[in-house]
Amino acid sequence: MHIIDIIAKKRDGMALSKEEIDFLIHSYTQGHIPDYQMSAFLMATYFQKMNDEEATYLALAMRDSGDSIDLSSIPGIKVDKHSTGGVGDKVTLILGPLLASLGVKFAKMSGRGLGHTGGTIDKLESIPGYQVVLKIEDFIRQVNEIGIAIVGQSGDVAPADKKLYALRDVTATVDVIPLIASSIMSKKLASGADAIVLDVKVGHGAFMKTESEAIKLAELMVSIGRLAGKKMTAILTGMDEPLGHKIGNGLEVFEAIETLHGRGPKDLVDVTVEIGAHLLLDALLETNFDVAKKRLHEALNNGKAYAKFLELVKAQGGDTKAMAKPETLLSKHLIPIFAKANGYVTDINALEIGKAAMRLGAGRETKEDSIYLDVGIDLLKKIGDPVQIGDPIAMLYVRDKGIAEASALVSQAYQIGREQKHLTLIKKTIK
Amino acid sequence: MHIIDIIAKKRDGMALSKEEIDFLIHSYTQGHIPDYQMSAFLMATYFQKMNDEEATYLALAMRDSGDSIDLSSIPGIKVDKHSTGGVGDKVTLILGPLLASLGVKFAKMSGRGLGHTGGTIDKLESIPGYQVVLKIEDFIRQVNEIGIAIVGQSGDVAPADKKLYALRDVTATVDVIPLIASSIMSKKLASGADAIVLDVKVGHGAFMKTESEAIKLAELMVSIGRLAGKKMTAILTGMDEPLGHKIGNGLEVFEAIETLHGRGPKDLVDVTVEIGAHLLLDALLETNFDVAKKRLHEALNNGKAYAKFLELVKAQGGDTKAMAKPETLLSKHLIPIFAKANGYVTDINALEIGKAAMRLGAGRETKEDSIYLDVGIDLLKKIGDPVQIGDPIAMLYVRDKGIAEASALVSQAYQIGREQKHLTLIKKTIK
Repeated sequence: MHIIDIIAKKRDGMALSKEEIDFLIHSYTQGHIPDYQMSAFLMATYFQKMNDEEATYLALAMRDSGDSIDLSSIPGIKVDKHSTGGVGDKVTLILGPLLASLGVKFAKMSGRGLGHTGGTIDKLESIPGYQVVLKIEDFIRQVNEIGIAIVGQSGDVAPADKKLYALRDVTATVDVIPLIASSIMSKKLASGADAIVLDVKVGHGAFMKTESEAIKLAELMVSIGRLAGKKMTAILTGMDEPLGHKIGNGLEVFEAIETLHGRGPKDLVDVTVEIGAHLLLDALLETNFDVAKKRLHEALNNGKAYAKFLELVKAQGGDTKAMAKPETLLSKHLIPIFAKANGYVTDINALEIGKAAMRLGAGRETKEDSIYLDVGIDLLKKIGDPVQIGDPIAMLYVRDKGIAEASALVSQAYQIGREQKHLTLIKKTIK
Repeated sequence: MHIIDIIAKKRDGMALSKEEIDFLIHSYTQGHIPDYQMSAFLMATYFQKMNDEEATYLALAMRDSGDSIDLSSIPGIKVDKHSTGGVGDKVTLILGPLLASLGVKFAKMSGRGLGHTGGTIDKLESIPGYQVVLKIEDFIRQVNEIGIAIVGQSGDVAPADKKLYALRDVTATVDVIPLIASSIMSKKLASGADAIVLDVKVGHGAFMKTESEAIKLAELMVSIGRLAGKKMTAILTGMDEPLGHKIGNGLEVFEAIETLHGRGPKDLVDVTVEIGAHLLLDALLETNFDVAKKRLHEALNNGKAYAKFLELVKAQGGDTKAMAKPETLLSKHLIPIFAKANGYVTDINALEIGKAAMRLGAGRETKEDSIYLDVGIDLLKKIGDPVQIGDPIAMLYVRDKGIAEASALVSQAYQIGREQKHLTLIKKTIK
């Protein structure tokens, strides 16, 4: 098998075989195929795409380049969820305890990741004492005992994907749906779950700007997962404004706790319950979707979900008392942002809000950056809310950096107009 | 200026500016742009092509990456020709002396090149004593004195093209017309000539397999040359069988001498005279194309062209006496190939013939290979010729290698059928 033939085959629009894709990824990871040939292949793929089988072979080959987690010693159906990334997305923090409180096995390894705010793991680290590193046997024992564990990724997951992503980043080949789909799925398929719900964000604050692109990506990921033997669902949810009100690590834990107490903002609750209901059915713990949603709402409102959250925090060494006073997770230094017009909030540019949070120290631009866990933004007003000049529309929780820049970004992110908009949050389900 | 933006711009089908192409080529040659970014750019160019201006900027940028020859101290209009490469193409050996005998200035730097047989320079080296290396001042003095010099390339011509070509070769991006055109033209534009005729070969023995591809390439090269201020003509000539009868370095000199004596095969004479007539007009030494052709035929038949050839050989140190006995240039060890059927020759696969010549030692596969100057193939029968079983159809001139393989290749290259084909040699002129 010769790499030049494989490049030429893709260039000419032909589908590659499993053997060819395995050879490509294996040889590239081993360093036998140089970057300059892989980048020609990637650009050819930009133009000629891949079919579902090829994207599946690619995802599997990248998964097999590294470690996979074996959850077979946990009885029952293990579930996982993945979001393509949005600002203010703290769904995992709520969904995990919520599902576990209803008997679902939630064994989650999560990333830190680059971005506007940290990943789920960074958010959990804002809980004093919470240990994100568990030995794999302790991780599995905890799931068997209390139904849930959320830890940082251990082992070397999909190193081929890491190498390929770094190359795509510098060769203008990031924006290729089959490559995005196989990149995400290579890591998801290594997670050991039996059922996966994908939350594909769409809108100007998301990676996918249009619904048609998001549908393509969602359908392809569902197809890859299914060809790999997983129960798959994807939902398309809007990212025209941040999800919920709070952005920043401690702030998002705060809002998750509020939500687990039954006091969550509607958009955040709706997305969490929608994903939860699919997984409850996938776990064979419920057969009716509407009943599943009802049961999830109940578990949020009757304290069961919060109780499971406390169990999780306790099991991983976190300070459960602090959970009763979540305001202690937040900076005491507040800066309000005021409305500059009368009317309704018509837009909150999620990317600008994310950037503002990063400037305050909530996220990292490079892997080496350290972050502040107690800074962030509370969006007091969201799209559709009426405002008057001088009303506080957002509150910055700050420390010592980025204040002026973040204030300007948040102020500019808000659009105020005469029309009262109503957004559709859950746009489509792909099952 | 950022390379990723340039890759993305080409990927998205936009035209690059002169500044962007200069930056690309200059930075790449200097090693500031890595191969993996250039190969992504090349593959994007495969799909999105380049317009005439971009291809011209690319050719000029590659020309300017190295040395150009300054022929301004030779009075009058200097001419050059280029063939895109065919088997048995010894036109330069005939055309140079022929044009010089009519007063045209023919200052030619030629390559050795890889391929089935050597380049023009290898062929000239089969003449005992012929010196292919001249100092630039001696080269110019010789053209001023006798109207002609043919030497090997000196200096570092278009190093950017060399680097880029090596990368294209391993990334499945060779077959891109604007890249082929700028590669050829970067070297031609460095040659210092005022008027250039391009002989674009088309057919199964040529790089361009179809007439429409060949026309595109020819038109683009003409456009590039013209935008760079040169008088340009391209002709499309058939390469469905080798040109003339003889393939191999000494064999081609032999056939060139025959042709300069007025005894050349029709196809070889026709192509030479066609190119010569365009250049005679470009050099302002004739105004009527048909009269130009007549004058060229006369110079071949009345000994003027051959006399100029002897002057060239003598000026460059070659043994003019050997030219009177050109059979001394050839191996004495002959192997005939016989017809296997009755009928007419309907096809002679030029690539297979070229490969056979290479196996005998006439050409080199890598730059380091040495070659035999006295081996090759004489095609006794060409397309349209009647043959009977057992007739000798070709004669191999061999030394100690490749005999069995070459015999089989030549035998297979011949197709014999019932139909008598008549080929059109000069298919199109682009002026």
